[in-house]
This record gives sequence, structure tokens and C-alpha cells, in this order.
Amino acid sequence: MDFNILSSLATKSKSKVLLVVLDGLGGLPGEQGLTALEAAETPNMNKVAEYGECGFHDPVSPGITPGSGPAHIGLFGYAPFKYNIGRGVLDTAGTPFVFEPGDLAARLNFATLAADGTISDRRAGRISDEEGKRVVKKLSEKITEIDGVKLLLQHVKEYRAAAIFRGAELDGKLCDSDPQKVGLKPLEVKPLTDEPDPKAELGAKLANEFIRQAKEVLKDEPKANFLMMRGFDVYDPLPNFSTMYKWTATAVAAYPMYKGVAKLAGMNVIERGQNTIEEEVQIVEDIWNETDFVFLHIKKTDSAGEDGNMSKKIEVIEHFDRVLPRLLALKPDVLCITGDHSTPCTMKSHSWHPVPICINSAVNRIDNVKKFGERDFMQGGLGRIHSTDVMPLLLAHAGRLKKYGA
Amino acid sequence: MDFNILSSLATKSKSKVLLVVLDGLGGLPGEQGLTALEAAETPNMNKVAEYGECGFHDPVSPGITPGSGPAHIGLFGYAPFKYNIGRGVLDTAGTPFVFEPGDLAARLNFATLAADGTISDRRAGRISDEEGKRVVKKLSEKITEIDGVKLLLQHVKEYRAAAIFRGAELDGKLCDSDPQKVGLKPLEVKPLTDEPDPKAELGAKLANEFIRQAKEVLKDEPKANFLMMRGFDVYDPLPNFSTMYKWTATAVAAYPMYKGVAKLAGMNVIERGQNTIEEEVQIVEDIWNETDFVFLHIKKTDSAGEDGNMSKKIEVIEHFDRVLPRLLALKPDVLCITGDHSTPCTMKSHSWHPVPICINSAVNRIDNVKKFGERDFMQGGLGRIHSTDVMPLLLAHAGRLKKYGA
Repeated sequence: MDFNILSSLATKSKSKVLLVVLDGLGGLPGEQGLTALEAAETPNMNKVAEYGECGFHDPVSPGITPGSGPAHIGLFGYAPFKYNIGRGVLDTAGTPFVFEPGDLAARLNFATLAADGTISDRRAGRISDEEGKRVVKKLSEKITEIDGVKLLLQHVKEYRAAAIFRGAELDGKLCDSDPQKVGLKPLEVKPLTDEPDPKAELGAKLANEFIRQAKEVLKDEPKANFLMMRGFDVYDPLPNFSTMYKWTATAVAAYPMYKGVAKLAGMNVIERGQNTIEEEVQIVEDIWNETDFVFLHIKKTDSAGEDGNMSKKIEVIEHFDRVLPRLLALKPDVLCITGDHSTPCTMKSHSWHPVPICINSAVNRIDNVKKFGERDFMQGGLGRIHSTDVMPLLLAHAGRLKKYGA
Repeated sequence: MDFNILSSLATKSKSKVLLVVLDGLGGLPGEQGLTALEAAETPNMNKVAEYGECGFHDPVSPGITPGSGPAHIGLFGYAPFKYNIGRGVLDTAGTPFVFEPGDLAARLNFATLAADGTISDRRAGRISDEEGKRVVKKLSEKITEIDGVKLLLQHVKEYRAAAIFRGAELDGKLCDSDPQKVGLKPLEVKPLTDEPDPKAELGAKLANEFIRQAKEVLKDEPKANFLMMRGFDVYDPLPNFSTMYKWTATAVAAYPMYKGVAKLAGMNVIERGQNTIEEEVQIVEDIWNETDFVFLHIKKTDSAGEDGNMSKKIEVIEHFDRVLPRLLALKPDVLCITGDHSTPCTMKSHSWHPVPICINSAVNRIDNVKKFGERDFMQGGLGRIHSTDVMPLLLAHAGRLKKYGA
């Protein structure tokens, strides 16, 4: 769907839309022959399905397993292949850091370097948030620019931080310095471009010089005596989700990356504590009157899937189901419950399988689905849609899209 | 799906993929109210469906009836409207002839010209392979170039052959010389381009002069005393299926055209005898350890459909079902059974109806389908996909695609 056309059809309204993303929701049958979603007892979600319209969405393209970035970008209506955001920008966007167009961002992992010059711990003993912040502060005081290019450092979480070069013409097509395995030496950052590219060459030069200087600053640290750079990416602003759809949009998410992707899209992001599902729901209740659209992100369905922990994934889904009545009490005009991608416990990873989606509004078609579950949803009225069709559908159900053409 | 992105995600693996194409598989209900696929007794295919995921693919676009070329091109992952291969190239590709980029190919049909200059038999009395080869040889010895442009001739089957002009800048947008009906005079080959096009004009000039000279050479032949040219096309290599997907791919097909399209895609094509389904399966068994991907093409489902012979189509499907256990014994990691397009017996022709498809792997979603059949597959978990999504899905099921994005 062309953004210019979609935006030209979008119109203001008092209707409210709640998009709930249970991360990694879709699954595959486990030993008992059921998926986590099929096995979970979800009386409240089932009611939403019974009066809603159900089906599946393909996050990026059939067969393609998405990272969290492209999966959310698609759900927000952006073509995932066109708007591909690198890890450096994605991770940093979840912090209070404010990007400027053209910034070259990279993710930093603090690490432990052994005396022989090899990496002995790729996470510096998983140092605490406090330790991570202290080390970032130490670096920030010593290194503020490299070769005249401004360097900004931002702590993200524990051993993770971000480095941002600002004020030069830079390209993010650069390889990681992380060798991905302990016992290996860190790699030199090099351009990945097919043709010689001065912007990428300058980026590589700055990165390598920063790593050299950081090593010197950190040399007496017991654990975080080194750092690695990965996920280089230049920040290029996305079309603004709020402007485009002509509403105020708010994101409620526990994890920085999801706050990040929402912020990149132009949503208001709630920064205060939202570590449990209850805390997240409390925030949704608190802000409900001040926003038209809420993106509520529940992380732990995905974590359980990645751990291959079927009973935990069932538990998280049931946990969400128990708090769902509080969200229903807000009477959203449109409620959509879906995932960003599938994370089958049997695969312990993201996968390409289409993601269950249910849209519930006063104007949805009713299908025969009465229960949340992959097999049930296969009989649903939505069929198999693309993730980028979700936002236009939610806007339509909310009465927020004008007719196209005469 | 962009080939560059898809290829960048493709990764090597030991997994093996078997794609079985029952040509023209889809159908419509006959007098008994069942399609051939629904009426056929297929216990082995049904098992594959029961543990697999079923649905439909649109070969080219909804409503569009594909020729065999575009139908296979789509299944192999190439956008059929972008990679449109003309009949001249397609037919010739199934022979040992080796194309060079820029070759202008046309299909030749030997014909019988009456004394009044009209076509009295468009297939020259369906002369035998031997006769066809003899006549091609006779022409090849007499005519090796036209106006300084190299001419290559290749026998295809019976009264069919191919002519290839090489070494000039030529365009294939030319009308056929075949008037399509007996009793009419052959047509002059003319450019079909909107604007004057010197490349097409030269192609037409070479074609008409070749026809004139061939008529002279063949004038004493009792049956094949003339030839007609059709399906002009310039050979433009496709992105290579094996390179792109990072595997070795092998085609097993009885008919030259299917060998041709596989060869054009860059598969290894088995040339030796494979006239029965059993012979084809024997070859799959023989080559199984040396290849990652097998495209197995079964022709006669389509021939029966074209003949409007429902009982014959049922018989071919049941025949395939009986040999299927030999393929299952090879334990492919991914087995896909589908068609290239539908050929309903009631229509006696290819049609636009979506084609039944079943994907079976250790990581497919289980749906409620327990039987091969159009109506059963409508309840399947795959839903309705595009033919170009089939290859990405097979690669995904085979664990041969990396995650996209962070």
C-alpha cells in the first residue's frame, strides 16, 4: 500500500485502536500435538476471537524469517524490505538518545580480552547495568571525537551500549568487529560495499580507531577491558506513523528494542517502569484518554519460544489472557491481537510461519472461529494477509480511512 | 521476493528438497461431482497431506491461464511477467542445443504446401523423428547463414525443429508465419514493435529469407516441402537457480520442454530415458545422493486433462500414488507435491484455477486436511499463495534461509 495514498485517505476520528503484539506468538505443535496457543486456556482471548475475524499475516514474505525489526516495521505498515533498520540504530533508538539524520550507529558489546589478544568473554561476564553505565561514562569522558568526527556513546543494557558518529558523510555497510566466538581475535572493521566507497571507508577508519583508543582507556578494567562493534547502520528517518495516519500513537513496551522501533516510527514512547504485564496494562489504562492508538508489546511469549519452553510460553499467554479484561474494559473501537512473527518452541528461534491475527471491532465480519489457535485460525475469515495490510485494516475498522476514488 | 535479498539469505545445508510437479494437476468437478484429484484413490498422497500443510498457489496471477513456461518459471521462483520466455527458446532449450545470449530463436514446424501456395497440412503429415532429423540435416547442409548472419538448426521432435540466428543485434518481437489454419497462405514475418525497430526489422528480414531458401531446398519432399516459423524470442539468461539458492539442483522430466525450462533456470538436466513414471522415479533414486534439490515432472496428468479424459487423469494420479512410497523411502527433508497449473478435463485446456499444493517437512504446521483434493485443500493451512512464494517456502522448510534483519 502506497504511503502517500494511504495518508491521503486517513482522516481524524475519535475512535481508538489497541494493537497487542504478543512477541513470537505463532508456533508449531509440540509433543502433545498442540501449539502453545492451542494448549493455553484463554477464555477471554477466545471471546475476542468468537466475535472477531481471524487469520494469519506473513511478517515479511512467505518463507522469510524476520528479525524483530522488520517484523514490527511490517506490522506498523512499512514495507520491510524498503525500510530495513540495522541493529545499531534499532538498539539505540530504545534509549533516550535522539538521532539526527546521517548518524552512523553501531552496537557496542563490552567484552573481555585475554592476554593473547583473543576474546575470552563476548559479554564481559554480563556486567550489571551500573557497571555498564560506569564504563560508558569513563569512555565518554576520555573520547569525544575521532579524527575530528563527533563520537556519542549511549549505554543500552548491561554489557550493551551504542556508539554514534555524527557530522561526517558516512555509510553503514561495514562488517562487525565481533568474531562471534570466544578464543578468536577481534576482526578489523571493513567496508562491505561492492565498489570502493569513501563513506564506508571513513566509517571503517573511525570505528577501528575508536576500538584502539577504547582498548587503551579500558585496559585496567577487570571484566570490560575491551569492546566490539556490530550492526553498523546510518540513521534515515522513517515516514512518521502519527503524521501519516493522522492520530496520536503511543507505545507501551518493556524492552528497549521495541520502544526503539516504535520511537523510530514516530510514536510516543512511555519510558517509565513497565516490567510486568500488569504494569504495562496499568500504563495503557493511564494513558488511554490521551491517545488514539496504543501499541502494547508483550515480550515473554518470544523469550519462552526461544528457550524452547512450551509450558512457559503457555503460561505467558494465559497470563495475558487474565489481564485482557482490563483492556476490554477500556472499550477500544478496534482491538487487534497478534504477534510480530512466530517463535515455535520446537525450533527455539524465530520462524517464517504466518502469525495468528484477530481483529475485533463493531464492523468486522464474523467467521466460525471461536478459539485462539493456529488450526482454528486456518478456518478464519481474514485468510492469509501480509503484515503491511494490518495497519490499513485497523484504520478501516476504526472508520479512519476515506473512500478511494469517486 | 527480490532475488538479491533471497540469495543473500540462502545458506548451504545438507537438507534435501523434492519438488514433484504433476502437470495440470488442478481440476474441476466432472459428471460425478468430483475432480480427478478428489476421485482418485491416493492413500500415499493422503498421508503426505495429513502430516503436511496444504493450500493453493496462483501460477501467474489470479485469473491468468499460464502456458507451461510461465507456470514453471513461477514455481522456480522467477516472476513470470518479468522473466517471460518465448516458445522458440523454450522448445529448443529442451534439446542438447547450447544457447548464447542474444540468440534469436524460433520454433519451426514442417508443413505441406499445396500447389496453390496454401498450407495443406500444418504438421507435414506428422512425420517421424527420423524423417524430421533427416530434413533438418538436409537444410543444415544447404543453409548455414542468411545475409552473413549465422543460422543454426536443431531438430526437436517429429515435425518440430528450431532455427537460431546468431551474431547480430536482433529482436524477437515478430509475428508468426503460421496462418494457424489449413487452406490459407503462410504469412510474412513482420515486426510487432510499436515504433520502428531496426533489430526487429533485421530479424523479420532474416526469417523471411530463410523461409524462401528453405522452400527451395525442400521443394521435392513429399510431405515436409515447407516450414513455418513461430514463437520468436531472443535468449536472455535467467538468474541461475543453483547459484542463487546455493545448492545443486537436478531436473527429471520426460518431455523436452520441461527439461528445457529447468535447463534455462540452471538445473542439471538428466537426459537419459525417462519415459514412464517408474523410469523417472528410478532416476531420482539413482541421483538422490548427488543433489540437494530434485524437480520431478510428471506430464500425463496434463495430457489427460487436455484430452478431457477424466478416467485417464485419475489413472495417472493413482499411478503416481503407487510409486510415491519409493520417493518417501528417500526421506526428503522437504517434499512438495503440486502442479504447475490446472487442466480441468471439463475444459480440455490449461486454466487459471489455483493449483493444489502440499508441503511436508518436520517443521510444517499441521492443518486439518487428511486427503488430496481441491475441496479438502480449501481448509488447509497454507491458504492461497503465489507460485513465486513456493521456492522461498521450500528453502525455509529445508533450513536453508537465514533470518532477515536484526
